[in-house]
Amino acid sequence: MTTAERTARMGLLAAHDGGDLGLARLVRDRGAVEVWDHVRAGGSTQLARRASVVDVDEVRRQTSACGARFIIPGDDEWPGGVDELAWSDPVGHSGGEPLGLWVIGPARLSDLTGSVAMVGSRASTAYGEHVAADWAAGLAEHGRVVVSGGAYGIDAAAHRGVLGSGGVTVAVMAGGLARLYPVGNSALLDQIAKQGAVVSEYPPERSPSRARFLVRNRLIAALSQATVIVEAALRSGAQNTVSWALSLQRPVLAAPGPVTSSTSYTPHRLIRESQAIAATTVEDILEVVEPLGVSRMINPGASDPSQPLLGGVCVSETGLTPAQARVRAILPSRRGISVDELSARTGESPLALLVSLAQLKQLGQAVQTRFGTWRVAHP
Amino acid sequence: MTTAERTARMGLLAAHDGGDLGLARLVRDRGAVEVWDHVRAGGSTQLARRASVVDVDEVRRQTSACGARFIIPGDDEWPGGVDELAWSDPVGHSGGEPLGLWVIGPARLSDLTGSVAMVGSRASTAYGEHVAADWAAGLAEHGRVVVSGGAYGIDAAAHRGVLGSGGVTVAVMAGGLARLYPVGNSALLDQIAKQGAVVSEYPPERSPSRARFLVRNRLIAALSQATVIVEAALRSGAQNTVSWALSLQRPVLAAPGPVTSSTSYTPHRLIRESQAIAATTVEDILEVVEPLGVSRMINPGASDPSQPLLGGVCVSETGLTPAQARVRAILPSRRGISVDELSARTGESPLALLVSLAQLKQLGQAVQTRFGTWRVAHP
Repeated sequence: MTTAERTARMGLLAAHDGGDLGLARLVRDRGAVEVWDHVRAGGSTQLARRASVVDVDEVRRQTSACGARFIIPGDDEWPGGVDELAWSDPVGHSGGEPLGLWVIGPARLSDLTGSVAMVGSRASTAYGEHVAADWAAGLAEHGRVVVSGGAYGIDAAAHRGVLGSGGVTVAVMAGGLARLYPVGNSALLDQIAKQGAVVSEYPPERSPSRARFLVRNRLIAALSQATVIVEAALRSGAQNTVSWALSLQRPVLAAPGPVTSSTSYTPHRLIRESQAIAATTVEDILEVVEPLGVSRMINPGASDPSQPLLGGVCVSETGLTPAQARVRAILPSRRGISVDELSARTGESPLALLVSLAQLKQLGQAVQTRFGTWRVAHP
Repeated sequence: MTTAERTARMGLLAAHDGGDLGLARLVRDRGAVEVWDHVRAGGSTQLARRASVVDVDEVRRQTSACGARFIIPGDDEWPGGVDELAWSDPVGHSGGEPLGLWVIGPARLSDLTGSVAMVGSRASTAYGEHVAADWAAGLAEHGRVVVSGGAYGIDAAAHRGVLGSGGVTVAVMAGGLARLYPVGNSALLDQIAKQGAVVSEYPPERSPSRARFLVRNRLIAALSQATVIVEAALRSGAQNTVSWALSLQRPVLAAPGPVTSSTSYTPHRLIRESQAIAATTVEDILEVVEPLGVSRMINPGASDPSQPLLGGVCVSETGLTPAQARVRAILPSRRGISVDELSARTGESPLALLVSLAQLKQLGQAVQTRFGTWRVAHP
């Protein structure tokens, strides 16, 4: 990638925040360099006013000072999965793919095959922390990367579970990497930066804010093949991360818990509403993510917008997993087939079929009709 | 009902056990009196040999001695819901409607509108007992009868929850009512007999056995509009009761619990496999049972075998509940419609629709095709 491209994207992120649908679309349509040159040429927009005071060289110095690197689409290290945000429905008023990411740590974000987001309440219980740490450790032992937000409670328990197993974990921040937050988790975040990666789409000195937490959540979901929610009360930021995962049509799993605990509310609601699969063991999680060894990351590169839906999707060497291939083989090409009917024909559970169908949809191989039935996608 | 009919049914139950598919079918086809006369006339069958030594007058004395009454189909007090066992699939090698029931207590089994079975592990945890007692008390406060098996653990917690709320609870025994089992629950069972009902299809002096527990479970499910399972490990008798409820196409709910507890295994499995709805509050249970006040028991009587499917089903004054009527109105008469498609058209959740469809099927108004789709039943 050219220096101009890198400078433009860093400048735009310094002049604005991530998650702006309009800016993401503009960059997608016109290219970052043209957009950056345009806003730097002056004008009365808020973006232009902010861009006029951005010192990209200073942001570069801050990036080096905190030991970070700045990666953009087209870099080998770029995690293709986040580009799917371009095509997912916005949650609230934000969305879109990130223009670039700051990263500290040895982990390469392009190596996130079978990665799992684990999120939940900051006000967690001993039960939830036990489950999060136990499952995160189990996922690490199966070679999976666990992605979370570095917050107190479930996030911290998940990160600690991985670190204790010598695995790789990624923490996505809602502020710049020179201001790791929360301060009480400094030692944990430092260890994650040494053993995995700490990531942000904000320049190093930007402080976290409530809006940035919500926008950040889309990256946690987009960096992961599945999202697991462990403990969340009626109102919880973890619900927001789940909404992003659903918007990306990636599987969501929820840990059941005591019905007597308020932190069981959201996981149970998601299960009842069939938005999440009830997860009771690490095996339940592994079942819905791509197996290691048989998959690779396809990244056609940002320069090929004609195949956006394939960006960063994990597929097997043969193109489809056995489960996907079985479903694909009996999908009709004209009128749709219901999940019930598919279930009757294949003997597989509706939930397993829905996972395969969502993956086939991501791969551009299946579409859902307005009646909720499924058929082959026509190119 | 004639004395001959009552004598024949009491005699047959004394000569045999309940839950024998062949005997139930024979009585359905030929009538109890003819079958009883036939086996009493001699013969080499096991039933005939046993019948030859039955002293019905002695069974009648034992019935009076323990304060029980013997009820049969056609009695005002007969619970029509159990007659649906005639049409449900057998579980294991047993099934079929009971020929009669012994009852102690003031509760009338015909008044079980909106009744709920609550079953679970004998080796329960404090968590499960708390949930069972709490929900049972809540159901009682909403005027619901709670049916269970009088065993240690979840059964006892459910019964106690109801008794503590001054409500009505029914315990179905796996042995005769002169031998209330388990002995450790004697005080509890005595109280149930005073405030609700203790029920058995076995003559008063019959001892409980493993086979009788399994056969008894079908009565717990059949006396209830819905079955709630609270705590059950991998192998549990509660799973058997759930199988009967599913065989009767009545809703099953399961209480989630800590994934770290082995007693959460079966509830979570049932939820994952979409056999049970995740219940988190009493309201979740009330949602799937018939509302009180708008329903009545239709009991066409055992003398009208042409309408067996209507036996004891609860329907509203207009014939259908509003939810049932909405679904019935859009069911096609030719090819079936999938639950997904129904959900897309009505905006109702697949689970709510499945409940309505199961009820319409019970009412003989809907049938499921071999592809799992649904259409109007043709008379």
